[in-house]
Amino acid sequence: MPALPGLLRASAAQAETGAPLASWNDGPAKQAILDFVRVTTDPASKDFVPPAGRIAAFDQDGTLWVEHPIYTQAMFCLEHVPDLVKARPELTNREPFRTVLSGDREAIAKLSIRDSFEIVLGTQSGMDVEAFREISRKWLAEAKHPRWDRLYTELVYQPMIEVLNHFRANGYRTFIATGGSAGFVREYSDKVYGIPPEQVCGSEQAFKYGYDKDHRPILTREPKLVLDNLEAGKIENFWLMYGRRPYAAFGNSSSDDQQMLEYVKAGGGARLSVAVLHDDAKREYAYGPAQGLPNTSVGTFSQEMYDMAKKQGWIVISMKGDWKRIFAFESD
Amino acid sequence: MPALPGLLRASAAQAETGAPLASWNDGPAKQAILDFVRVTTDPASKDFVPPAGRIAAFDQDGTLWVEHPIYTQAMFCLEHVPDLVKARPELTNREPFRTVLSGDREAIAKLSIRDSFEIVLGTQSGMDVEAFREISRKWLAEAKHPRWDRLYTELVYQPMIEVLNHFRANGYRTFIATGGSAGFVREYSDKVYGIPPEQVCGSEQAFKYGYDKDHRPILTREPKLVLDNLEAGKIENFWLMYGRRPYAAFGNSSSDDQQMLEYVKAGGGARLSVAVLHDDAKREYAYGPAQGLPNTSVGTFSQEMYDMAKKQGWIVISMKGDWKRIFAFESD
Repeated sequence: MPALPGLLRASAAQAETGAPLASWNDGPAKQAILDFVRVTTDPASKDFVPPAGRIAAFDQDGTLWVEHPIYTQAMFCLEHVPDLVKARPELTNREPFRTVLSGDREAIAKLSIRDSFEIVLGTQSGMDVEAFREISRKWLAEAKHPRWDRLYTELVYQPMIEVLNHFRANGYRTFIATGGSAGFVREYSDKVYGIPPEQVCGSEQAFKYGYDKDHRPILTREPKLVLDNLEAGKIENFWLMYGRRPYAAFGNSSSDDQQMLEYVKAGGGARLSVAVLHDDAKREYAYGPAQGLPNTSVGTFSQEMYDMAKKQGWIVISMKGDWKRIFAFESD
Repeated sequence: MPALPGLLRASAAQAETGAPLASWNDGPAKQAILDFVRVTTDPASKDFVPPAGRIAAFDQDGTLWVEHPIYTQAMFCLEHVPDLVKARPELTNREPFRTVLSGDREAIAKLSIRDSFEIVLGTQSGMDVEAFREISRKWLAEAKHPRWDRLYTELVYQPMIEVLNHFRANGYRTFIATGGSAGFVREYSDKVYGIPPEQVCGSEQAFKYGYDKDHRPILTREPKLVLDNLEAGKIENFWLMYGRRPYAAFGNSSSDDQQMLEYVKAGGGARLSVAVLHDDAKREYAYGPAQGLPNTSVGTFSQEMYDMAKKQGWIVISMKGDWKRIFAFESD
């Protein structure tokens, strides 16, 4: 398997050294995270959780890395649409392919997550799973975010990398629970987040066993969605894959994190549910519509979820107020 | 969560101490396993596999523990059939429920795996996932195998526990890939095999998010099979859940291990596919029909799979010849 030089450079996940959560400003959010880890791992605490049960789940887009102006994974898929349409010209005038082919960035940014699923199934079906791995890796090593002109894997939130490290330093196993496709995330989750591929739960299409022209057994991606991680699907499929209720969960979007955060918080003993509010237009982006922030088609944080967070005792992170820095490269 | 005293006692999974594979007779099977681990973990070897890629998959029934005369998980489900039929009398005369209610052990033992799925979906649907955990744990702490009068969790093959320990001692992550339901296996996999719940891939029904009468969020088991691990489904769903081709796989049955073993062996570099042949009627059971052993409805090892194993270079374990002892309690 070829190495990923770009990813290695971007990676910040590592053993925790020095003070935990160094990129966080002191305040209730930082304190709540430190307190939760302490009371669930101190054997003398009434909320002690034995190591076998220490599971923490993290949404990816908008929680661990940038999701604006378009989900990274959607960017990856869009590039393969022209080839798809060449092979299947009947898609030329069908949505969402027509919008993608128009090149209209604004219209493309408005495509829904369901549209993305359609594009994923269209562009990736029939592909050998190992060929897909190669294509994903190659794209990730080259493609850059238009605003920062950096690899997408560099646009991970340094404060969240420190959260991952702090949880793991205290015996937690960390998982990704993404609305996107697991296969794509698994190509960098280990190097970028310190999360092995088997701990990535995502939406996923079916796989089919068969033989290639040389009679070698292969697995191919099929045009059928088996795991749909939107809305309650994220926590339903987390249980399907891992069979446990996490003790802590981090998310940011009403479209796929709300039920997971609610379910985690409703467990017995100490539980931590955290929602990231993007309120920093200068260093990253500001969007809601919670708290009057602008509404967008990517990563909606509704006022309803905000109210639920307050009522149920989740922690809401203000990127502007709680994070000293957003990206590792800021201090380069 | 209540402790499982019975399971703790039965557990043999632990850090490897002393010589590896101590319960194995010297011979080609033992040597092949030791050689494979050595060449894939020695940095100087051309077949070296970096730690991130070291994944080994193990079937459970008939590979890690006894599957005769009836799959353990089927035994567990059968006990819940009378309650189910009381709630839904229309099932009384419908198969496979009619056979189960007849109490005819021989007829019950002949039910197919598909029949078991029907019983699982019938008896477990609508159940809160955490209530299901309690019921499984309670059953496992009490139910005993009719032949040995021991807990099912004591009927694990000591030589295979040593294989698991040896792989893990060399940086491999070990996974269960079972045709049975993952939820049941996850209640003891950690204590009995040293395999955490998230590394258990099995057949599984859908889960549904909702609220109980006190408006608390719950997840319930639904009457719909999402993951079907029979035949090629086992390796298809292994990829779905973990996104990687294992470097080593162990199985015993043509009904759900054959494609997994074939796919693993067909990967590049050193790969190990191992099939357990039950040829020891005295210490355990003897069944095939490979090599003229009696055919049964549980754990079929076909002559076709045997021939494939020889042709493709899998290792076939003779329980009679390769294993010094079968169970840990033999030396009690």
